[in-house]
Formats: sequence, structure tokens, C-alpha cells
Amino acid sequence: MIKGILFDLDDTLYNSSEFVSIARREAVKSMIDAGLNVSFDEAMSILNKIIKDKGSNYGKHFDDLVKTILGRYDPMIIATGIITYHNVKVALLRPYPNTIKTLIKLKNMGLKLGVLTDGLTLKQWEKLIRLGIHPFFDDVITSEEFGLGKPHEEFFRYGLKRMNLKADEVIYVGDRIDRDIEPAKKLGMITVRILKGKYKDLKGEADYTIKDIGDLINIVKELNGKK
Amino acid sequence: MIKGILFDLDDTLYNSSEFVSIARREAVKSMIDAGLNVSFDEAMSILNKIIKDKGSNYGKHFDDLVKTILGRYDPMIIATGIITYHNVKVALLRPYPNTIKTLIKLKNMGLKLGVLTDGLTLKQWEKLIRLGIHPFFDDVITSEEFGLGKPHEEFFRYGLKRMNLKADEVIYVGDRIDRDIEPAKKLGMITVRILKGKYKDLKGEADYTIKDIGDLINIVKELNGKK
Repeated sequence: MIKGILFDLDDTLYNSSEFVSIARREAVKSMIDAGLNVSFDEAMSILNKIIKDKGSNYGKHFDDLVKTILGRYDPMIIATGIITYHNVKVALLRPYPNTIKTLIKLKNMGLKLGVLTDGLTLKQWEKLIRLGIHPFFDDVITSEEFGLGKPHEEFFRYGLKRMNLKADEVIYVGDRIDRDIEPAKKLGMITVRILKGKYKDLKGEADYTIKDIGDLINIVKELNGKK
Repeated sequence: MIKGILFDLDDTLYNSSEFVSIARREAVKSMIDAGLNVSFDEAMSILNKIIKDKGSNYGKHFDDLVKTILGRYDPMIIATGIITYHNVKVALLRPYPNTIKTLIKLKNMGLKLGVLTDGLTLKQWEKLIRLGIHPFFDDVITSEEFGLGKPHEEFFRYGLKRMNLKADEVIYVGDRIDRDIEPAKKLGMITVRILKGKYKDLKGEADYTIKDIGDLINIVKELNGKK
């Protein structure tokens, strides 16, 4: 009997890959307009290396980019990049189509809903609130809170504990085979892969594979013998 | 001969007191709406104490407020406050009336213009860029960069050095007698107090006292013998 659903956030409930990519590109363009003397392609290549080396939650990507290119700290250029990134975030953050309708239906079916996500707690909450979907979730569990992220099974086990549910009562919905589906499956959850974001063309096996979050409704009905 | 003008930023070029006050109040209201179980007045009183104890650039005012009231960390409530504060900032940041026109005229008079401000470098730059006035300034000097802020005379001396001007070639414009006017006067700058912000009713003596930034034009003309 399925009693709850745990969702990944980025690229599962909204188009994180696209938003981040546009925000970074526009931020770099605005920094070049502000005097960062470099070609767009070279700036993006340096920025991508910094993000790869320092991780996506490192707070000083643009500081390092400007220092690498200009050899000095230039607060005007860095602040310009930060403002543009933030403006794009505010403008573009929205849930995938059908997400809110589906969350309404799932709540009406009496299911507990939660988010289990890698990332900084306040940043992930900021996204949920800006997306306008936070009231649907009984709990939001972040890797920062737990101290360990995906694909560690302990993190998924902690998520079950927070939801007060057993593995076989829970569906896990995520976009990534390696970090979402595999660990959830190992613990005994029903896994649903949603074909969204930049990993959607990678191969991989989940219990269910869907293109639209609305397909969850029938999956729950099927599993709970109501169809 | 006046060759340059150094400006304070907060409450001198835009209404910082009002904007911060509205942003904090709206953020607290939004946190109460989100479940912070406290009266508005009590929340504001606790928040003001936290700001007084930790300083205005401490990054976790809302974290501490929520922990003090609820006895626990509640990321949804904290993130709600942060989003509201930021939204108000974006909505309300604008220069005082006549500021841009006056900056245009001062640049046309051949003056070097600079900002000498207490605060975090990227935050102060963010304000200048959002205000749309950063292109007028030849330099922006922050206390974070120098390591020491107002009212220390060394900070003002460092500002003169950065502008490559002598004290008697510079007008300092600020709203505060104790932190702007007195140290600038001691170093030998011409001081202009602008009656804006929450300290505008305090007594104090500057070389000139103005209500509108546009009065600077005639002060420069007078000092440079062109009137």
C-alpha cells in the first residue's frame, strides 16, 4: 500500500538545468557588458571549470571567474553578474507543466508528500517557495541537514524516517538513475523516473518511467489496486 | 579648487532607512503569515535586538529570530523572510529625487566622483548597480576593502588616496555628523551634510547643510569662484 511519495526537486519538479544554464549565460554576458574583457565562450569554459572544481554550491563562482580573467577583484563586475543571475532566477523559476494539478490530486488521494533533495537547505526552500509548491509537502529533507547527500542510501533511509513511512509504502520520483533511482530501489521503494532535465537521454531502469508527472496518479491507483 | 566629491551611500544617495525598515517589517509579516507564532511587535523587538547585537551585516538575522521564537530552525519560515526582504529591496531601491540629474551636472563640471561607504563590498555595489548610478563614480571605496570603517580618519584618508586627490580638493557629502562630517572635516575636506534619513533631526555643524542634492552645484560653483 503506497502511503507517500518522495520527490527529487531539481529537474524533477522544475526545469533546473535550463534555468541554471540560462542564468549563468546571462550573468556572464552581463559581466562582459560591464567590462569583463573576454570572449563569451572562453568565460563560459572558465566558469564551468570553476563550478566543476568547487561544486555548484560554492558561493564565489563569479568572484573566481573575474579574478582568473582580470587578475584582480572587480566588485562592480561581480555584483553585476550576481544581480543578473538573481533576476533570471526570479523570472524563470516555475514548475513543470501539470505539476501543481498533480500535487493537488495526490494530496486529495490522502498521500504524504515529501521532497528529498541535495543542496543547501535555505536555497532549496527558496526554490520551493518561489515555485509556489511548498504547501503541498509534509516535509522537505536536504543533504545539508543530514550531512550526507545522494546517492548515499543513508540519506534515503533518513528521508523515510522523517516521513515516518516504510520503504515499501513509498514511491521515489527523480530524474537521475545513478543518484535517485538506484539508491531508492536498493532500499525497496517503488521508483519512478521522470524523463526531464539534462540526463533524460541516459539509459537506466526504474520501476516506472514517465514523461509527465501526471502519470503518477495512475501508477498510485494501480499499486493500490484501485484501477 | 574643488576637483572631486566623495559621497556616503546609505541615506545620502537613496533612502536606506526607509527601505530597510519596510523590508524588515514586510519580511517579519511574511514570516508570521508562514507560521511564526508571535505578535508583530514582539517579533520586531527581538529582531531589532539581534541586529543591534550582531550588526547589520550579520547574515543570519532571520535564522536567529526564528530560533529565538520557535526554539528550532524552520527553513520554510526563514526562506520566506529572505524572499520577502529581497523582493522589497528590488521593488523599492531608487535614488533620491534629483540625484541622477545632479550627478550628470557634476560630471559635466569635470569633477571626479566617488563613494566612500561602510559595508560589504558586493552588497554596496549591488545597491549602486540596482540604483542605476554606478557609472557616475570613478571609484567606490568600502570599509570591507579597507578593513576599517567610519568614523576612522584613516578610512577617509584612504579614500582620498584612492581618488588621487588632496583633502582640500574634495567635498565630502554625507547624512551623519558623527560618522561622515566630523572625520572628513578633521582631515580638511569641505563637508556637506544632507538632511536625509533617520538622523536628519540631530544637531550638528557642517560647512554646508542642504536638503536637496542639487544644491551641490552651487556650492561647487561658489567654492571654485565661478559664481
